[in-house]
Amino acid sequence: MNATPEQTDAAIAGENEAYIAGVAAQLNDFLAEKHQLLAEISPATLVLIDSIKTLVTGGKRMRALLCYWGWRGAGGAADSTSIIAAGAALELFQAAALIHDDIIDRSDTRRGGPSVHKQFSTLHADQGWALDAERFGHAAAILTGDLCLSLSEEMFARVDQGSNPRARAVFNLMRTEVMAGQYLDILEEVAGPSKPHNTAVARASAIIRFKSAKYSSEHPLVLGGALAGAQESLLAGYSAFALPLGEAFQLRDDVLGVFGDPVQTGKPAGDDLREGKRTVLVGLTIDAAAEAEKEFVDKNLGRQDLTDAEVARLCAIMVESGALASTEAMIADLSETAFAALDTLPIEDFVSVALSALGRGAVSRTS
Amino acid sequence: MNATPEQTDAAIAGENEAYIAGVAAQLNDFLAEKHQLLAEISPATLVLIDSIKTLVTGGKRMRALLCYWGWRGAGGAADSTSIIAAGAALELFQAAALIHDDIIDRSDTRRGGPSVHKQFSTLHADQGWALDAERFGHAAAILTGDLCLSLSEEMFARVDQGSNPRARAVFNLMRTEVMAGQYLDILEEVAGPSKPHNTAVARASAIIRFKSAKYSSEHPLVLGGALAGAQESLLAGYSAFALPLGEAFQLRDDVLGVFGDPVQTGKPAGDDLREGKRTVLVGLTIDAAAEAEKEFVDKNLGRQDLTDAEVARLCAIMVESGALASTEAMIADLSETAFAALDTLPIEDFVSVALSALGRGAVSRTS
Repeated sequence: MNATPEQTDAAIAGENEAYIAGVAAQLNDFLAEKHQLLAEISPATLVLIDSIKTLVTGGKRMRALLCYWGWRGAGGAADSTSIIAAGAALELFQAAALIHDDIIDRSDTRRGGPSVHKQFSTLHADQGWALDAERFGHAAAILTGDLCLSLSEEMFARVDQGSNPRARAVFNLMRTEVMAGQYLDILEEVAGPSKPHNTAVARASAIIRFKSAKYSSEHPLVLGGALAGAQESLLAGYSAFALPLGEAFQLRDDVLGVFGDPVQTGKPAGDDLREGKRTVLVGLTIDAAAEAEKEFVDKNLGRQDLTDAEVARLCAIMVESGALASTEAMIADLSETAFAALDTLPIEDFVSVALSALGRGAVSRTS
Repeated sequence: MNATPEQTDAAIAGENEAYIAGVAAQLNDFLAEKHQLLAEISPATLVLIDSIKTLVTGGKRMRALLCYWGWRGAGGAADSTSIIAAGAALELFQAAALIHDDIIDRSDTRRGGPSVHKQFSTLHADQGWALDAERFGHAAAILTGDLCLSLSEEMFARVDQGSNPRARAVFNLMRTEVMAGQYLDILEEVAGPSKPHNTAVARASAIIRFKSAKYSSEHPLVLGGALAGAQESLLAGYSAFALPLGEAFQLRDDVLGVFGDPVQTGKPAGDDLREGKRTVLVGLTIDAAAEAEKEFVDKNLGRQDLTDAEVARLCAIMVESGALASTEAMIADLSETAFAALDTLPIEDFVSVALSALGRGAVSRTS
């Protein structure tokens, strides 16, 4: 007897919930172990683990869920402890990346609260310690991110990988690619303005591929499949779905970074513009805007002291040049490609439904 | 027939040389693989791997050698590829720690050349890129350190650990402890001045235990033993030797950081004083110096703009208060404890000779 769509949705929701709860419990137990260890070293170091804990408690767990459904699509069992550990490792890796990203971007907020380096500089100021509060904040956050990165790896080493080297290879590739992609991103911020305008979109596209689409979408899904021993053909199919999906996801993120509601995104309005992020949206704007507007964008993007009026003018240029509409069209195209690929995957229907729901949520979200 | 001391020394030198060459070749091949991967992502990212390569090419390889002799003492074979990979993983971890340390300490030089963040800020300035050169340098070096940390783990995952979880546990503990220790170190720089003078030595001793002695000495030796399947009693004996040895090593480092010859250490004179490192040497100085001198130390330590005359006065206070002599006495005591423990280890004579030579080199070095 076939399940009704409602029954399928309920079953998927149940699995999502159970898995997310499993990952949360795993992270909780693991960080409690580390809390104990740090308490023995010195109670003064507990702030490190506490700030990691806060960070991994929130979030959408999108990467972990992609990993889970990649595993399920390749025949992995719903109640495996190994896939829970893999999801927890991905969440810890993401937390580490966020901690260091926020230092690099000088973002003082994360999910509506203070970022890790800001927590430490506030601690410094509150305690009236010597020397510079901001410098202490950055230093402590570099170390916290390093610890978190190490914990991610420690968790991944707990995943049962049998004798199959494929999953480890994906995890390794993911890390190297995202760091290279992040470097391209900060390089574009400083070197982009002196490069040709007409290749800005291509450069921004390469950045989001490595920094975001492969890292946040393709690799987690492929990792889950590889852990379940999937054949290369299925893993290639996963990539054909998840890579364009991840690109659409990042384009959505870029749009939200400029036009999103700060209350929903947890990021102050104009933050991305003050950081000087050279996104595809910016590239399209520079491509399409009139000369005076182009110049205004090039001159003001990345200025930390942009006024609200200047932020509003930048936003208006993005709308009036048609760049926002073009970005939305790209999101639609990429989504179509992704979901067409999903339809051809040799996986059970309910896994396909679960991946489709996850994907549609990612590209049409508002936060 | 017993070997003569000369034959033993020659055999040890041969093993040291072969092992170091093996680690260097392993690192070379591994980084060539990663170079290829980054070239495919974008040639612009190759600077990341090049700066890592420069860093792991130098160095004393002390951690790797301790790991090797820990392995040999527990019956591991001289020609194992696994112990070479373990040594390479330790070297990559150390390189990652140095990259981030230099950002934290604002050290512009490393082994006589520019530190990684300085290389990137110079690249920025040379290319005439937009925005801030120093900020770009720090951001790029954070990412390079993260990449290097991930590569260390990737290398460690290649080590054959059989079904024995002990080596992985040591590697994990090493990473967490060193990061916690580094946090205590930066915390002491800012919070130390407002804490009681008479506990400064105890606080500094705790820092060097975790940040340095366990990380640089105890854990590498125990790791090698664990990889060879050593019993817990031998591993405990390794700790009894390597922990005081590591403490003596770090005290030597602190002395060299203030009194060492910049030509030999590769670090500018006064660097440690300008960084404000609250070492055991500083703690002993604050303990023993007269009131006016105490105040001078507290007020000036950590001032980035210390003049050469102020550096000289700080050095003189350390000598005249007897703090330098006390530190040397501590180095001698710790060394004695370490070598007494070494003598009782149930390991082959030539391994004992090798560890003794390695240890004596570490505590009496001049660079």
